[in-house]
Amino acid sequence: MNVAVPVKKPKVKSVEDVQGHADTRQLPINKVGIKDIYHPVKVKDRARGEQHTVANFNMYVNLPHNFKGTHMSRFVEILHRHEREISVDSFGQMLVEMTEHLDASAGHIEMTFPYFVMKKAPVTGVESLMNYQATIFGEHREGKTDVWLKVVVPTTSLCPCSKKISDYGAHNQRSHITVRVEVTVGALYLEELARIAEEAASCELFGLLKRADEKFVTERAYDNPKFVEDLVRDIALRLKRDPRIGRFRVASENFESIHNHSAYAEIAGVGAGLID
Amino acid sequence: MNVAVPVKKPKVKSVEDVQGHADTRQLPINKVGIKDIYHPVKVKDRARGEQHTVANFNMYVNLPHNFKGTHMSRFVEILHRHEREISVDSFGQMLVEMTEHLDASAGHIEMTFPYFVMKKAPVTGVESLMNYQATIFGEHREGKTDVWLKVVVPTTSLCPCSKKISDYGAHNQRSHITVRVEVTVGALYLEELARIAEEAASCELFGLLKRADEKFVTERAYDNPKFVEDLVRDIALRLKRDPRIGRFRVASENFESIHNHSAYAEIAGVGAGLID
Amino acid sequence: MNVAVPVKKPKVKSVEDVQGHADTRQLPINKVGIKDIYHPVKVKDRARGEQHTVANFNMYVNLPHNFKGTHMSRFVEILHRHEREISVDSFGQMLVEMTEHLDASAGHIEMTFPYFVMKKAPVTGVESLMNYQATIFGEHREGKTDVWLKVVVPTTSLCPCSKKISDYGAHNQRSHITVRVEVTVGALYLEELARIAEEAASCELFGLLKRADEKFVTERAYDNPKFVEDLVRDIALRLKRDPRIGRFRVASENFESIHNHSAYAEIAGVGAGLID
Amino acid sequence: MNVAVPVKKPKVKSVEDVQGHADTRQLPINKVGIKDIYHPVKVKDRARGEQHTVANFNMYVNLPHNFKGTHMSRFVEILHRHEREISVDSFGQMLVEMTEHLDASAGHIEMTFPYFVMKKAPVTGVESLMNYQATIFGEHREGKTDVWLKVVVPTTSLCPCSKKISDYGAHNQRSHITVRVEVTVGALYLEELARIAEEAASCELFGLLKRADEKFVTERAYDNPKFVEDLVRDIALRLKRDPRIGRFRVASENFESIHNHSAYAEIAGVGAGLID
Repeated sequence: MNVAVPVKKPKVKSVEDVQGHADTRQLPINKVGIKDIYHPVKVKDRARGEQHTVANFNMYVNLPHNFKGTHMSRFVEILHRHEREISVDSFGQMLVEMTEHLDASAGHIEMTFPYFVMKKAPVTGVESLMNYQATIFGEHREGKTDVWLKVVVPTTSLCPCSKKISDYGAHNQRSHITVRVEVTVGALYLEELARIAEEAASCELFGLLKRADEKFVTERAYDNPKFVEDLVRDIALRLKRDPRIGRFRVASENFESIHNHSAYAEIAGVGAGLID
Repeated sequence: MNVAVPVKKPKVKSVEDVQGHADTRQLPINKVGIKDIYHPVKVKDRARGEQHTVANFNMYVNLPHNFKGTHMSRFVEILHRHEREISVDSFGQMLVEMTEHLDASAGHIEMTFPYFVMKKAPVTGVESLMNYQATIFGEHREGKTDVWLKVVVPTTSLCPCSKKISDYGAHNQRSHITVRVEVTVGALYLEELARIAEEAASCELFGLLKRADEKFVTERAYDNPKFVEDLVRDIALRLKRDPRIGRFRVASENFESIHNHSAYAEIAGVGAGLID
Repeated sequence: MNVAVPVKKPKVKSVEDVQGHADTRQLPINKVGIKDIYHPVKVKDRARGEQHTVANFNMYVNLPHNFKGTHMSRFVEILHRHEREISVDSFGQMLVEMTEHLDASAGHIEMTFPYFVMKKAPVTGVESLMNYQATIFGEHREGKTDVWLKVVVPTTSLCPCSKKISDYGAHNQRSHITVRVEVTVGALYLEELARIAEEAASCELFGLLKRADEKFVTERAYDNPKFVEDLVRDIALRLKRDPRIGRFRVASENFESIHNHSAYAEIAGVGAGLID
Repeated sequence: MNVAVPVKKPKVKSVEDVQGHADTRQLPINKVGIKDIYHPVKVKDRARGEQHTVANFNMYVNLPHNFKGTHMSRFVEILHRHEREISVDSFGQMLVEMTEHLDASAGHIEMTFPYFVMKKAPVTGVESLMNYQATIFGEHREGKTDVWLKVVVPTTSLCPCSKKISDYGAHNQRSHITVRVEVTVGALYLEELARIAEEAASCELFGLLKRADEKFVTERAYDNPKFVEDLVRDIALRLKRDPRIGRFRVASENFESIHNHSAYAEIAGVGAGLID
């Protein structure tokens, strides 16, 4: 646990030696704080209002060159100052509050959590939960706050080349599509980002499928082959037109069923909501 | 770092308080030692004589109730006593040596490492390396030494149900087949175990495939659908007949391309080489 | 996705080829089911009644030799048959229900989740959440149900040898103590198991500590040095006396601050609640 | 497995549908290639000339908007074109070769591997291996090649605040210091980077320590307390003066022994070898 020590302020003698160092280094620190702390949270949910989940937090501030250290315990206080379960609405507010409470000019928070969406199977309509790894992250710097959403969407990809060259069948596999977007205007739900990725994939995934559904998703993937390059391009096209989105980055990792390595593609761009 | 303290032996006064406790607890310890230490090793290789790799070791001994602690540094000495790179031939010997050097009646070592096999693509014959996670583990207890091999074999599995019910296509995915066998007689190569798992799968994996090869593996998997239950049963059948194998355990985890969870099966049995 | 096919039952022609195989192998399967599926749950909490969290499930049944495959979709149905959030009270009930729904004679479930306990700092009393990784697992076999609790408790360990031989200071580190117990009679809270591990450690951990608290925990650990062997023995002594506990296993992994590997100890035993 | 299809080039009829898409999207791709492939390598070693290890590779190129896909198999060919074990000297050369072989204007490779250094214990001089996770990564773009080294150095950190406020003892823990530097001129060994991090820590780690050594490292850490901020600043000071280093980034994650989360700091800067 550290203690913040401004260099110029008179100090009790017991920490004088510590102070000495600071003058000679003259090095501001980009990020200092706590990493890998878990906390229960409540997250806004389009279908049900809110859902309970558990988040992993990284919380950092910058530190000017003339300060020896930051106040580590204050980061944890910020988490506990809210009710036991933090609402996501308060994410931007928490970012500002943290930066001010730490007497910093820049603050950074990342909050990663499992997120559930109830889905209906494509033919029988049987319902089951699908889980995604979601992250809300952002930075507050010189009075300006940027907030990003990120979601890792597991999907099916089916290889167009394998389909084309083979007399029957086509290799397919689970793919993790990661969509990161800067939210500049209005509300954007995690479900919406996940949906964009699922619609670009060869097929989306479900927790529960009956036989008629399994036939449907098998044929759907075969009818809809996609290279890893197609996945990221088709998603980028959708994000570019969205007036709520500023900068974005899309990646897909396909865990190839014919190799022991992944195919990977990544594309960066800007949406219609970019603020200069 | 701990220090072994036999209860009955006269001690220098500085550790008398430590000794006191031991008498009251009267609890032998099943395993004590070091975990998660890395060391370069040389492993026997059927095709090339030997290969260089890096292993992660767990090394434990038992501890009688009247000893306060074991000598942690001796485990590390055992690793370094051999040449810089440890040969696998010396695994059984290292197990005995460790148990004796630690004055124990039972010793246990697990050594896990990436293992490479050069494979030829099925049509073009182009060569590439395939990697497996291998483990040699064993126990020396009351003069008897058991040595096991374990290998995690990534393969393709193609779902028979999906193939049967769909007009075209079939979902397939990467599957991790884990084969663990007790070697009771003679030499058994990691390649042999990997091969048994690959032959039972819908198709094996390759590092490098040309177009003609990709056509081959796509059709081969489609011609050869396997449930997760089939994978473990077909491998178990092979292991039961092997005169070099005693106890065994086979598991397969299929990373379903239509779900966000795995299908899993596990079967235990005994081979023709079981020693009573 | 698999489909259960009893060998003797007449089948529609489309799956006859699949049936053929089963007769020749004659191999029952120990475990078959789904692995690594996430679901929101509600868990019983001594202080607050219940808490919301997210669990990872593994769910398996056995499969007789004359069945080709199990019904994978039924496992997911079991998870969704309960309300959206599963209560832990219903764990034993879910185990029986799953085994019956799958027409099996043995069933096995593992459910792992982050669990939070509000703790007061030792001097200032400031409150903060501490998180543990908890697991409820169990087996239903031939009409008998065994339920186990497991909790991984992060603590501080301080090395007695280092303290003894050094003129000042002593190396200390985070240790993960894993306690697994079979609950045979009455109620046992996860908090109670965590508490037993924390009381045996050199010091327990807290989310938030003020300066007076940090002084306390530093001195407390120094006053209370423990070898990895001491940790597991002291906990085993407590578990042996507990009338609610049958079989148990305690392990500690100390992430040594002076080495790049861990010290490890493990002890198995039986509590006062063992049922023959 | 994908196949590169230039949009303007006449194509055989079987892939015409695939071509159609490319025109409408007009999106270049930043990175496309293979991820998470393992290969044995030989790495330059200051003390012994070279060492054998196993590397994980990510290999990407950019893709212009008018190409449908890249040639995935060529990445694997690049790995195999070299001898079975790749020397690090050839890293820059491999980067250029890959970019050209894929007909790209930019290429990116990351190669991560365990790296071993033989160290002598501080008092007894007993030798043992210490392992580090090392990465060589770089980019070739418009005829210019940047190569970076990264090494994760496990060390001991001892908290100055805990030492100051406590009557005896001080909490300490394992810390992972990550140093990333752009090598602009001359030779820089992984050992040198690791050494810089170890000298800035409260104490370095060893595989094997005898009692006299354990006393030394305990007292050394107590005599040399460091906040996470001190670790990254002291290392940044050293890197800034190095004429072989351009841009750099230093981070430290301290796995606090009194909390269940980490303290973290990160600093970016430029060395004396920066090339504009």
